[in-house]
Amino acid sequence: MIELIKKKRDGHVLSDIDINTIINGFVKGEIPDYQVSAWLMAVFFQGMNDDETAALTDAMMRSGDMIDLSDIPGIKVDKHSTGGVGDKTTLILAPLVAAAGVPVAKMSGRGLGHTGGTLDKLESIAGFKVEMTAQEFIDKVKKHHIAICSQNNKLVPADKKLYALRDVTGTVDNISLIASSVMSKKLACGADAIVIDLKVGDGAFIKTIADAEKLAEIMISTATKMNRKLVAVITGMEEPLGFAIGNALEVKEAIATLRGHGPEDLTKLCLELGSHMLMLSGKTHNHDEGVALLKSLIHNGKAFDKFVELVDIQGGQTDMVIHPELLPQAKLTHEYKSKATGYISHLSAMDIGLASVRLGAGRETKESLIDYSAGIILTKKVGDHVQMGDTLAVLHANDAVFFTKAEEYMNLAYTFSETKPDKQPLIFKTVK
Amino acid sequence: MIELIKKKRDGHVLSDIDINTIINGFVKGEIPDYQVSAWLMAVFFQGMNDDETAALTDAMMRSGDMIDLSDIPGIKVDKHSTGGVGDKTTLILAPLVAAAGVPVAKMSGRGLGHTGGTLDKLESIAGFKVEMTAQEFIDKVKKHHIAICSQNNKLVPADKKLYALRDVTGTVDNISLIASSVMSKKLACGADAIVIDLKVGDGAFIKTIADAEKLAEIMISTATKMNRKLVAVITGMEEPLGFAIGNALEVKEAIATLRGHGPEDLTKLCLELGSHMLMLSGKTHNHDEGVALLKSLIHNGKAFDKFVELVDIQGGQTDMVIHPELLPQAKLTHEYKSKATGYISHLSAMDIGLASVRLGAGRETKESLIDYSAGIILTKKVGDHVQMGDTLAVLHANDAVFFTKAEEYMNLAYTFSETKPDKQPLIFKTVK
Repeated sequence: MIELIKKKRDGHVLSDIDINTIINGFVKGEIPDYQVSAWLMAVFFQGMNDDETAALTDAMMRSGDMIDLSDIPGIKVDKHSTGGVGDKTTLILAPLVAAAGVPVAKMSGRGLGHTGGTLDKLESIAGFKVEMTAQEFIDKVKKHHIAICSQNNKLVPADKKLYALRDVTGTVDNISLIASSVMSKKLACGADAIVIDLKVGDGAFIKTIADAEKLAEIMISTATKMNRKLVAVITGMEEPLGFAIGNALEVKEAIATLRGHGPEDLTKLCLELGSHMLMLSGKTHNHDEGVALLKSLIHNGKAFDKFVELVDIQGGQTDMVIHPELLPQAKLTHEYKSKATGYISHLSAMDIGLASVRLGAGRETKESLIDYSAGIILTKKVGDHVQMGDTLAVLHANDAVFFTKAEEYMNLAYTFSETKPDKQPLIFKTVK
Repeated sequence: MIELIKKKRDGHVLSDIDINTIINGFVKGEIPDYQVSAWLMAVFFQGMNDDETAALTDAMMRSGDMIDLSDIPGIKVDKHSTGGVGDKTTLILAPLVAAAGVPVAKMSGRGLGHTGGTLDKLESIAGFKVEMTAQEFIDKVKKHHIAICSQNNKLVPADKKLYALRDVTGTVDNISLIASSVMSKKLACGADAIVIDLKVGDGAFIKTIADAEKLAEIMISTATKMNRKLVAVITGMEEPLGFAIGNALEVKEAIATLRGHGPEDLTKLCLELGSHMLMLSGKTHNHDEGVALLKSLIHNGKAFDKFVELVDIQGGQTDMVIHPELLPQAKLTHEYKSKATGYISHLSAMDIGLASVRLGAGRETKESLIDYSAGIILTKKVGDHVQMGDTLAVLHANDAVFFTKAEEYMNLAYTFSETKPDKQPLIFKTVK
């Protein structure tokens, strides 16, 4: 291992065997953390080329269980977001794409810190079960074209160990390490093709479009080397997606979107990502055809019906979906008022995410309990003009003390300007 | 600690407090190895400036016990060599400088790998004791101007832990880390001033004169910031120093040198280093004055007498020094013959060191037992012309099987040329 550290340190290219040696040795506990962290820092400085990144992705993917979806006919397309605030796209996309007849075998995770998790959101629907055996999962997808389950904790142990180490050693921010972490998980979940929603900006861990493009390119190169397909959509995360942040609140917004009256930005992003999923699956041949098909599935009610079906087959109370007012509701609400007059020039997704955690909607640590009813409904977003004292957002919680805690972050979240700001586009670019 | 790793990773300067936090946390076990190794790799790439290096040296120096030599009158000058093969200069310099009336309070270490250690060499003299209390050590130096003892294992624990980690994480080769490691130990031993013998070339861990100069400069800057004095002498280690390699064999050569008939290179280096020690102590005012004084102490027998006195006060059998033929003697000798005709153009100090380890003279691991009588006497050195079959060296061991093992390295050690090689100078440069 010392030689492999020095090899990378001195700018040489590691072979597939070198990388396998490192990853396997690390997972088995034969190579100690302190050598791997030194190697990670050397990777941070020297980078990895496309071959090395593909080898790392492959070694991580094979480090634990792998899901075999080959029993399910067709091309299995997965979607991944690099992490957003108020990002409920999976709740919409999964039934939407499944309604088009494309199998959606979705494995998701829970929220931590300022970003939420799809599983937590679904569990705000009473009875919804995310734990199932691989066979149950495959059977559901074969029969209903859809299932959303909890990520098997035996998948990609290399990523869990490596990410935990990167997180505490200042070695998160490297595109090869990011690419291999994201892709190894998706590929171990059995995806033939992946649409990646690469979030850029405040609150996202990719700060610039140039970095996002580099990451997209290395992901596409890695996918190609591994005989998979990948499309990356670079999207903005200067502000939260939609208006709702918090589990049950986001489910309500997802239902509204599936019924055709969701927020414009959220609907647009779902149509964009969904259209790429349809193309990758071979269902449609161009972007416009996909968007038209998805719109028709929203308007004829089939997308929403598929969501009801999903809730039903996973044990959830469909009543709550058909009548969203039955979803968990916080006892208290509090109007957050503007401290200034002017245009909202910036609305920090990260601060809003942290405020919602303070309200009880998220986890500060892995052990935290979630209040499904808590969260935030934004009433104004970037570009809106407000007067001092106008309501900017409604906070939902079950204890008034949380409002005070959340307000600290709310106060940080907003920036105002005298002139109307140029609003950043929601979708910057598609790389494929 | 994550922030401190990132700070260095991103090229910022660490404060004294930052560096203290890292070193103290590491020694106390509060900061885990894997974070320190990532930080070390960041230091490898981003380097440290003079202030950071001084802060690191200071933090390491203070990480454990410190020896207080202030009871001993005068400026205490220490000498350190960055590691040579056949380097018995301490055995000569300590009594030589002490004979000039300069107090020599010398703490030394043991050999490991291809380089020997002063303590092992002295212990080849029957009865010689290197363990003593700090008070006994100080009392001896006050009374006799000389004592050589084992390094207290409570000195500079930060260096022990850090070096062990650097060794297995590819982070040894950084001049700030090297400088702080060397200097923290010497300063914790109570030195007011230090002469560093910086070995350059094959077998040394500094490969070029440019690197040695950089290291010398950062050491001098560090010493100045810590109100100490330091002189660095950059010397060649293209071949072993003198002719003898192995503990008792080196003691014999040291005795010969103290009696005025040692090898030319060894004598020259001792006079050079010794003269700088005398100047730093304030005993002499220029280089030539120091060399003349040291030569006179050799010629009038006082240097040798001081060595006998040292052996006597530390419990060694002075007979063995006065009659070196009584020192441990190997049962077997074997003449190593030249495989070629021509000039010896290169004689690898490292290979000779490794060959002597195979003969039993050194340690492969910390637990290895040493055969004091084993070793090598070179009969030819770089620049000598030899015929095929000429004896190049005489190997000493107590089991003939060791000769075969040692020959593998002996064969690697020699390079021949048809024309007379330009011999590298022994002393390249003094930096002060």
